[in-house]
Amino acid sequence: MKFTIQRDQLMASVQDVMKAISSRTTIPILTGMKLEASEDGIKLTGSDSDVSIESFIPAEEDGIVYVEDIQPGSIVLQAKYFPDIVRKLPQSSVHISVDDHLNVSIQSGSAEFHLNGQDAEEYPQLPQLQTEHSLEIPIDLLKTLIKQTVFAVSTSETRPILTGVNMQISGDDLYFVATDSHRLASRKVPMNGQLKNLSFENVVIPGKSLTELNKILDDSQETIEISVTENQILFRTKHLYFLSRLLDGNYPETSRLIPEQSKTVVQIDTKELLQSIDRASLLAKENRNSVVKLVTKNDTQVEITSNSPEVGKVVEEVRTESLEGEELKISFSAKYMMDALKVMDSEKVNIQFTGAMRPFLIQPIDDDQILQLILPVRTY
Amino acid sequence: MKFTIQRDQLMASVQDVMKAISSRTTIPILTGMKLEASEDGIKLTGSDSDVSIESFIPAEEDGIVYVEDIQPGSIVLQAKYFPDIVRKLPQSSVHISVDDHLNVSIQSGSAEFHLNGQDAEEYPQLPQLQTEHSLEIPIDLLKTLIKQTVFAVSTSETRPILTGVNMQISGDDLYFVATDSHRLASRKVPMNGQLKNLSFENVVIPGKSLTELNKILDDSQETIEISVTENQILFRTKHLYFLSRLLDGNYPETSRLIPEQSKTVVQIDTKELLQSIDRASLLAKENRNSVVKLVTKNDTQVEITSNSPEVGKVVEEVRTESLEGEELKISFSAKYMMDALKVMDSEKVNIQFTGAMRPFLIQPIDDDQILQLILPVRTY
Repeated sequence: MKFTIQRDQLMASVQDVMKAISSRTTIPILTGMKLEASEDGIKLTGSDSDVSIESFIPAEEDGIVYVEDIQPGSIVLQAKYFPDIVRKLPQSSVHISVDDHLNVSIQSGSAEFHLNGQDAEEYPQLPQLQTEHSLEIPIDLLKTLIKQTVFAVSTSETRPILTGVNMQISGDDLYFVATDSHRLASRKVPMNGQLKNLSFENVVIPGKSLTELNKILDDSQETIEISVTENQILFRTKHLYFLSRLLDGNYPETSRLIPEQSKTVVQIDTKELLQSIDRASLLAKENRNSVVKLVTKNDTQVEITSNSPEVGKVVEEVRTESLEGEELKISFSAKYMMDALKVMDSEKVNIQFTGAMRPFLIQPIDDDQILQLILPVRTY
Repeated sequence: MKFTIQRDQLMASVQDVMKAISSRTTIPILTGMKLEASEDGIKLTGSDSDVSIESFIPAEEDGIVYVEDIQPGSIVLQAKYFPDIVRKLPQSSVHISVDDHLNVSIQSGSAEFHLNGQDAEEYPQLPQLQTEHSLEIPIDLLKTLIKQTVFAVSTSETRPILTGVNMQISGDDLYFVATDSHRLASRKVPMNGQLKNLSFENVVIPGKSLTELNKILDDSQETIEISVTENQILFRTKHLYFLSRLLDGNYPETSRLIPEQSKTVVQIDTKELLQSIDRASLLAKENRNSVVKLVTKNDTQVEITSNSPEVGKVVEEVRTESLEGEELKISFSAKYMMDALKVMDSEKVNIQFTGAMRPFLIQPIDDDQILQLILPVRTY
């Protein structure tokens, strides 16, 4: 195997594929990265057996030549050193070649690295997904769906199914839902008839996989294909293949958590509320989920307070756009509230309370595609 | 006590003073920050008893008003919360007031923090330095002196005196010298008669103090006054007062370490050599001070190599400007060489070797103010 490749293209692919490679795997060869050269281009593969990523660098695309002098072949390189080597090569062109004894040479300018490779035959085969359960959405939209839900997955392994994001189809809508049982984040996307008769149940994608996928994908209007089998999900773009296992188990029915009526409705500026809760949470640094209190004052203001006996207290009044219904005193996690407000893509939000002990809803004004639900904390 | 102050000025001073405050001090009140209001302005103080920093915000300067409505007084605030509070205040103007029960109120816009203060009487008095041993140098130059030497102090407490930088006066020159006994960094500054009859011996400033001082000082042509007593050193600018203890003990005589003759002299591009050594060190990630080998090839090239049996090897030829004297094979720490080359402020360096087992010198071409010395590693 040998080829000459543009360093920047190689670097970008290496960085993507590295997201799947862990130094703490139980299968030693998976600490490596597989390189395959064919006449069409170079394919890099990384996997930790939960997530597998393939990135393809075409020999030529849109008239630009990325790879030249290709002799087909394959090798596995130690992933620990490869990214730094590529990043620090002195010239923009890189020659990689492998001899019969798995010795790899990486040469650029006057610098020459000789690495011990491993036989690519020993690298596990990635499963080939056979499915007709596919849909396509813009990459931008997928990134937004991930961002608006994945923060709410559970970080505890007591209920493993809650560490994932549930992808549902209901009618003509696609839903992403995450909950850690103290709060819930949900995002709906109308698919305008594109789903045809597609249906799948109980698709739960590990939050960690989605977080890595989100890092790899660049903002783009291009589409990404999502294919689902019984235990795996594949995200595929032109040159990227991102495969993740799905979580085993039944995702809980979450729709019954959402209150159907409300007793106090507040409309308020998203950023002002976010910053005021951020300030109120400052005095409770030790407590990860510091608790703040919201009290309705009159028709136009809510008061945000927090109190840490040894340190002091914070009081702030925030002007509302409107405030209707019953008077209310409610306490909740500042972190949960800030997480929810940060992903609202509207200047103003609508908050619906159903009393101090009941979960409350946060939604953008005039938009029901995003729904955030938070359970209050009992302090009264 | 009360006053109204500009948030950005207060924030800058708080950040400077925080550099001296440690949460792990044995004197509880030193986890706090002292605020003193006088008609002239506001003084902030932080100290961990090794280093003390005072920052002064004048009530008015150059026609700009920074502090208003001052009622003199003082208080100690918990430093853990104060910086975040100031940073996140909603408006550019901040009102701070203290009542008779040491309750502090910090108010900005509609946000109001109430903190428990501590009596400023309990805060230790900083020593007032009485000395005529003072000199002034530009702040820029002091920052450069620190940068070019402090990286070479020892990080081990086996010889505590080596954790500091030795400030010497010799003739009309000021010297900063640091060594960890494996390498030495020295910078000389001709003082053009400004030192008069100033002399001091054995002034050893903790490397940690200089690193913090360097972070606080902004690049500037203005001067900083340096005053030395038997066990303390004071750096003073217009609004900043930075006091550090000096290290006890005798700094070793370092001048005899510097070889007086050389057998091989290489002139080479600083950046090319630095990058080539950086690449050669890549394969030895586990080993903090990875060893690289330099071999003279002919009149115009040196070869840089490194070898990690399990991983592979790197070979690179670097073109020299000139290469004179005996043939040489020498091994040294890549980290030490890179540290030394990074602080050279010239495009080309002169390296003087005296054989594979003797320390070698690195200096800018045509400039003897910077001197870096490295002990080789025995590998042959």
